[in-house]
Parts: sequence; structure tokens; C-alpha cells
Amino acid sequence: MPLINIDALPVREIFPGLRARLIHTDRVSHSWVEVAAGAPFPEHHHPHEQIVTVLDGELELVVDGTTHRLTPGLVFVIPPGVRHSGRGVTACKVLDAFAPVRDDYR
Amino acid sequence: MPLINIDALPVREIFPGLRARLIHTDRVSHSWVEVAAGAPFPEHHHPHEQIVTVLDGELELVVDGTTHRLTPGLVFVIPPGVRHSGRGVTACKVLDAFAPVRDDYR
Repeated sequence: MPLINIDALPVREIFPGLRARLIHTDRVSHSWVEVAAGAPFPEHHHPHEQIVTVLDGELELVVDGTTHRLTPGLVFVIPPGVRHSGRGVTACKVLDAFAPVRDDYR
Repeated sequence: MPLINIDALPVREIFPGLRARLIHTDRVSHSWVEVAAGAPFPEHHHPHEQIVTVLDGELELVVDGTTHRLTPGLVFVIPPGVRHSGRGVTACKVLDAFAPVRDDYR
């Protein structure tokens, strides 16, 4: 898999308005997500840790009941099992790095 | 550690001209690297897998003897133990995602 063109990966709509392109290795999954302006994603949780990196735009992230606003340069680490939800404040690009691999996204 | 301001993290010069800011979780390390224009980094290898994501600028990456040019939108997955080197073609910003954790960078 070594050299990957993100734009050439298939798109998976993980929630309405959230278009993800996914890379899986043996240990992690990286999900490149385009979030539409205003698009919400519902509260959920999973056993994977998740590092949320906003690359462009602004993302609202609610983690365990506390609301955060993420812009480029701010990163949020969601521990395994912690409930979270959110929405695109603007259209935004987000890199979600999961460990271990999201087998449910393969 | 949940909300992290990358710019507020201490800088570690991992090679001359490569300034890294590091996030460690239980499973991975994310290294935000500013590479100076022209700065080389020598061939090395490690038991961690490494996902190289160029966020800005252009990076030359030589993996197992083959040269690649990375720009935003291109990602390279270096498997564990594979030798690699490179240089900043321009000043560039790179996110290196390692798994497991780089204990040598703590």
C-alpha cells in the first residue's frame, strides 16, 4: 500500500454529510473526513482510541458532555470507550487516527 | 491530555533542521515535524510502522532505495523495520504517525 493518493481512495459516508477516505495498516486506521458545513454526527463510542486533527475549517466536538471547538493546530485525543458527538461549524477536513484498526470500516 | 495545542508543545530537534512536536497515547505517537528547506535526514529504521502525511510543502522520501516526492494529499506507509531517509525539498510540515509508541521520543 505504500504511496497513497488520498483523493483516489473510495469515499464512505460514515454519517450523513461526513465523507471518509480510509487507510488501514496492521495497527491503525486513518480516516480523512470531509465534514459538510452544519452536518452533525450523533453521540457514539467505540473501543478504539481516536486522535482528532482538524486540517481545515472548524469542528465542534462534544466529548463526555463537554463541548470543544477545534481548528487547525488543535488536536483532541478521545480515549477508548468515551462517548462523543459533534458537527461541522464550517465545512472542514479532519484526520481521525484510530488505534487499533477500525475493522468495522474495512 | 485531551485538548492539545500543537504550537504549545515543546520542540525536539530529531535531526538537524527537523523540529518535532510530539503527542503520545497508549498506542501511538504523532510527531508534527517542521522540516527546513533542504534539510536532510539520514537513513534509519525502527520497529514502528510510520504513516507519513505531508501537510504543507514538499518532502523527498527514500524508502528501501526508492525515491518518492510527497506533497499534501499523498501519504506514505513505511512498514516496520524498513530503512528510509529524505529531505525537505521545500520547507514543509509533516505529520508522522508511529505505532506503537516511540518510547525513545518520550
